[in-house]
Amino acid sequence: QMPRGNLETIHHRALVLAQVRKWLDGRMFREAFECMRKLRINLNLIYDHNPKLFLENAQNFVRQLDSISHINLFLTELKEEDTTMTMYPFPVNTPGQLATGTSGKKVDIVCDALRSAMESIDQYKYSLSILTTHVKKTVPELEVALQKVHELRVNPPSATNAVSAEEALKYLLFLVNVNELYDHSLGTYDFDLVLMVAEKSQKDPKEYLPFLNMLKTLEPSYQRYTIDKHLKRYRKALRHLSKCGEEHFTEALNLVKDQRLYGEALGLYPANSSQYKALSCAYAEYLVEQQQAEQAGLLLWRCGETARALQAFVGSASWRSALCVAEQIPLPPDQLALLARDLAEKLVELRRYTEAAILLEQYAKDCEEAISALIAGAVWEEALRLVYLYNRQDIIETNLKPALLEAFSSQTAFLETQRTMFIRHKTRLAVVRELKEKARLQLLDEDVPDCPEAELYSEASSAMTGSHAGSKYSHSNSRISSRSSKNRRKAERKKLSLKEGSPLEDAALLHAMAEVVQSVDKMREEVHSLLKALVLFQFDGQAGKLQHAYGDALQMMEAGLPEVWEGGLQLTQAPITGPNSTANSITASFQQPRPSATQESETPPPPKIRNAVKWKLSILK
Amino acid sequence: QMPRGNLETIHHRALVLAQVRKWLDGRMFREAFECMRKLRINLNLIYDHNPKLFLENAQNFVRQLDSISHINLFLTELKEEDTTMTMYPFPVNTPGQLATGTSGKKVDIVCDALRSAMESIDQYKYSLSILTTHVKKTVPELEVALQKVHELRVNPPSATNAVSAEEALKYLLFLVNVNELYDHSLGTYDFDLVLMVAEKSQKDPKEYLPFLNMLKTLEPSYQRYTIDKHLKRYRKALRHLSKCGEEHFTEALNLVKDQRLYGEALGLYPANSSQYKALSCAYAEYLVEQQQAEQAGLLLWRCGETARALQAFVGSASWRSALCVAEQIPLPPDQLALLARDLAEKLVELRRYTEAAILLEQYAKDCEEAISALIAGAVWEEALRLVYLYNRQDIIETNLKPALLEAFSSQTAFLETQRTMFIRHKTRLAVVRELKEKARLQLLDEDVPDCPEAELYSEASSAMTGSHAGSKYSHSNSRISSRSSKNRRKAERKKLSLKEGSPLEDAALLHAMAEVVQSVDKMREEVHSLLKALVLFQFDGQAGKLQHAYGDALQMMEAGLPEVWEGGLQLTQAPITGPNSTANSITASFQQPRPSATQESETPPPPKIRNAVKWKLSILK
Repeated sequence: QMPRGNLETIHHRALVLAQVRKWLDGRMFREAFECMRKLRINLNLIYDHNPKLFLENAQNFVRQLDSISHINLFLTELKEEDTTMTMYPFPVNTPGQLATGTSGKKVDIVCDALRSAMESIDQYKYSLSILTTHVKKTVPELEVALQKVHELRVNPPSATNAVSAEEALKYLLFLVNVNELYDHSLGTYDFDLVLMVAEKSQKDPKEYLPFLNMLKTLEPSYQRYTIDKHLKRYRKALRHLSKCGEEHFTEALNLVKDQRLYGEALGLYPANSSQYKALSCAYAEYLVEQQQAEQAGLLLWRCGETARALQAFVGSASWRSALCVAEQIPLPPDQLALLARDLAEKLVELRRYTEAAILLEQYAKDCEEAISALIAGAVWEEALRLVYLYNRQDIIETNLKPALLEAFSSQTAFLETQRTMFIRHKTRLAVVRELKEKARLQLLDEDVPDCPEAELYSEASSAMTGSHAGSKYSHSNSRISSRSSKNRRKAERKKLSLKEGSPLEDAALLHAMAEVVQSVDKMREEVHSLLKALVLFQFDGQAGKLQHAYGDALQMMEAGLPEVWEGGLQLTQAPITGPNSTANSITASFQQPRPSATQESETPPPPKIRNAVKWKLSILK
Repeated sequence: QMPRGNLETIHHRALVLAQVRKWLDGRMFREAFECMRKLRINLNLIYDHNPKLFLENAQNFVRQLDSISHINLFLTELKEEDTTMTMYPFPVNTPGQLATGTSGKKVDIVCDALRSAMESIDQYKYSLSILTTHVKKTVPELEVALQKVHELRVNPPSATNAVSAEEALKYLLFLVNVNELYDHSLGTYDFDLVLMVAEKSQKDPKEYLPFLNMLKTLEPSYQRYTIDKHLKRYRKALRHLSKCGEEHFTEALNLVKDQRLYGEALGLYPANSSQYKALSCAYAEYLVEQQQAEQAGLLLWRCGETARALQAFVGSASWRSALCVAEQIPLPPDQLALLARDLAEKLVELRRYTEAAILLEQYAKDCEEAISALIAGAVWEEALRLVYLYNRQDIIETNLKPALLEAFSSQTAFLETQRTMFIRHKTRLAVVRELKEKARLQLLDEDVPDCPEAELYSEASSAMTGSHAGSKYSHSNSRISSRSSKNRRKAERKKLSLKEGSPLEDAALLHAMAEVVQSVDKMREEVHSLLKALVLFQFDGQAGKLQHAYGDALQMMEAGLPEVWEGGLQLTQAPITGPNSTANSITASFQQPRPSATQESETPPPPKIRNAVKWKLSILK
């Protein structure tokens, strides 16, 4: 009989899938499998179609297929992908299986389920498939597979359908690269297994035998360490090496340093041992290099290395811990005083005046310097407290009052520059927005559906970063918040330029204004305490002026914010409709760059005004 | 001749205005005025049409009109309104006058300009109009007007066209209510003037003569005080009374108390006088009543009332100032210690542990209690500093370590509840948004142009405020930020309800989630210091767990934020277009309530995660 052409092998995919689904629903796995194999339908569907049903019928599935090679085929085709979502979506109007609550990886779940099914049916018959389930797992369990092969060799099963160790190993080598398998066999520390794999491999016995023989001469822990190190499993290597006694500690310490396993190492030695101390010191050295001197200090302190701990704490300006350690050593009083002065100097540089004052007062016993630091930091109340505590009222006239008046001058001057800058930016912003709005309307008139002007506006400027007068101004007698956040914001703003006509000038102006408002709002606490100090010393006139100037500045900025931050929004929120508008043009008119939400990095959120922080004195008019 | 009907009096308004404008441009004020008066065009236009031109030609205007009654008519019709903006807008295509830079009120500007013009032309002829310019000012200058009338009476001018004092007063009484004029005449402290007005008025001489006679017997300052008090001009009254010598001080003090003129009063007496002290005390009493005890303390302290100042400072927990005053008194050591303990107790209640510790350590000399306060406040480093400063290492075992472990437990428990709450809210939010989106699409399908669903969603809920589990949780060993801001936020949220199905449930969920994130983010500093303390005392296990839990919570929340805060935005940003859409339906689909910007009070801005605040220890895995 002549072939009748290919016609009979043409199937309608949808019809076939429907049939496969029916079989699967009916637990007729064999029929489904045969059909899918023949028509090259991805076998994952067997599981994906109804994972719960499959897992409940794993034994059933094995029994129906009843073929090692078929099961292996299914196993090797397993992928994480859910084919009902990608290749074979459920037909419309079918209530799809809800996402099953099973956690974990699909491949691992299926492998584990089938292995347990096969083991309960006939572990000898299915041993090759069982090996496959180990190899296929997300993290292949090669050691376990090798162990099973080894078992076959040591205790050859009497069952007639059992495979030999030889066959099993051959199969494994078919699944896995031989060098990988050799390494993993080494990793079991079982030399029989290693030899078995080595013999099957193409490796030269002259190459591996000397190594294996050398290993055999070693003490067990050290042997394992050597193997792990050879396999670059440094964590395991360290664990074994730590059990090899003190004579190997130098080696361990070097391993720790080389591989930076400090944290692990500390967990392997008792906290009061000399090794623990040595490791802590090594760790501390590393941490100091990593600019983590404070944590280094903690490690050194707790293992009793006080002198080095002190150094680390001084290096990180952790003055409280430094002093604790100094008292514990104990440092003689004159050295303690010197240390305190050193640390105080550092803290003053960091504008941490209150802390510097504690050092000077309590450890250097120099109340005059302490008060000076507090006055320099505008910490008026605390300065006054020390003045009275040490009965040094003379300092009020010589230092405190002049400093108060200077602070008054610098604060009012600072407020004036901030006011001016806010107004200048606000005026310019209105101009820029008008220009952009004009440009927008012009472009919309031309009804370009892809909205190229949006791109035009959001294009990052390559222009030079405009100089920003605000951040240049530094006023004395004032604490300035962490530099780091300021630098970060500056970096973010690098692409923004205040230069007139730069593409993102409006965003740059908003950023600059937000910073101005923030810097003025931040003064609440400082102004409040300055006002109280001025009043106390009868400088009512200056206090009144400052209160007035600050209140005015805050009010002006708060009143200006809604227009500045919502002004742009209102402009663009009016839809451009009319006889010439189209669905696209209306849509485009809404999709203009908005000042909020969408362009987070370009337009900052409106600055917060902390009206909850009261600063005004009611006794000043 | 018979009347020819009204036809000739009908004019086209636009043509007339055009003619008036031409006259005004040509400085033909007389023609313009006559025409406008006849056709009842608002006379303000004479100025409004071109303010600069008018002011430059004020004399010209007066000369052209050359009529007291016409000038008075113009003056009395003056209003702040700009008629070119309201009644008589410039014709289209005319370059309108740009907003003139003149500051101040229009009425005042015109009055002053015309007065100076008339005075330079003929102050006698125009004296009635000059009086009008005083009366018409925003704040009528009645005293000046009266003074001018008085001048006419005392020195009757020889000019023939001058009006008599009699006539002028009559005219003034026509413009101003007689009682008001009488009061103002009294206010000039000029009895001649008073009598002149009184005689012209309908007042009974039996009524005012005794009062005037009584006044005449008084010492000048006291006389003025009596008049000002009679006219309820208490500030002026106080100023005059303060010049009346010590025998009247009690009266002054009562006036100050009655009228709460404390601030003014302090400015009227020298700072070292007994009166200043008495006023300060009275002011302080008032301030204490007004919950401003700290400011009361400042006033009392600076005038030497130390005992009362101390009381005020204690009342306002201004412990630094309280101690300064106590040292100044000086309080005996045992009383100072008691005071310190009292204040420390207050501060502990306010969760200001560090400050409480300073009091206990330095003034009550009780380092043990100081350390306890610091441990209670989770201020580990400072606690440890005192432990070593006072050589009390025993406290580490008895108190510090147990407190550290307790803090570890409470922090991990707190983190767990916050995690759970965040997830619960997030899940529910997704459900609510889906429901609303469905409702929105349904309503848009019906193409209702006025978008009533937006109203439906933004309608404030009248439902009960849902209980908010988050704010109920209080964890020990942790400083909690100012209650006030929390209460404020609570009040804002009152209309929001977390109850399922409440109209603003999504906004309420956002608020609740923002609070959760904020409260977790706020723990950075505290967790950091707890981690360091745990490591120092070898509690590496707990430290590791806490670092893990906190890192997880932060990461989970940070990862969830974009979806939560922008999820709604993305949903609504896809325009609903299609064959059935109309300009209205597209517009409506954009005008959905957005989660940001527009509905400020309902949807909070996304909470800030302060990634700049580093808290992790690199030595913990």
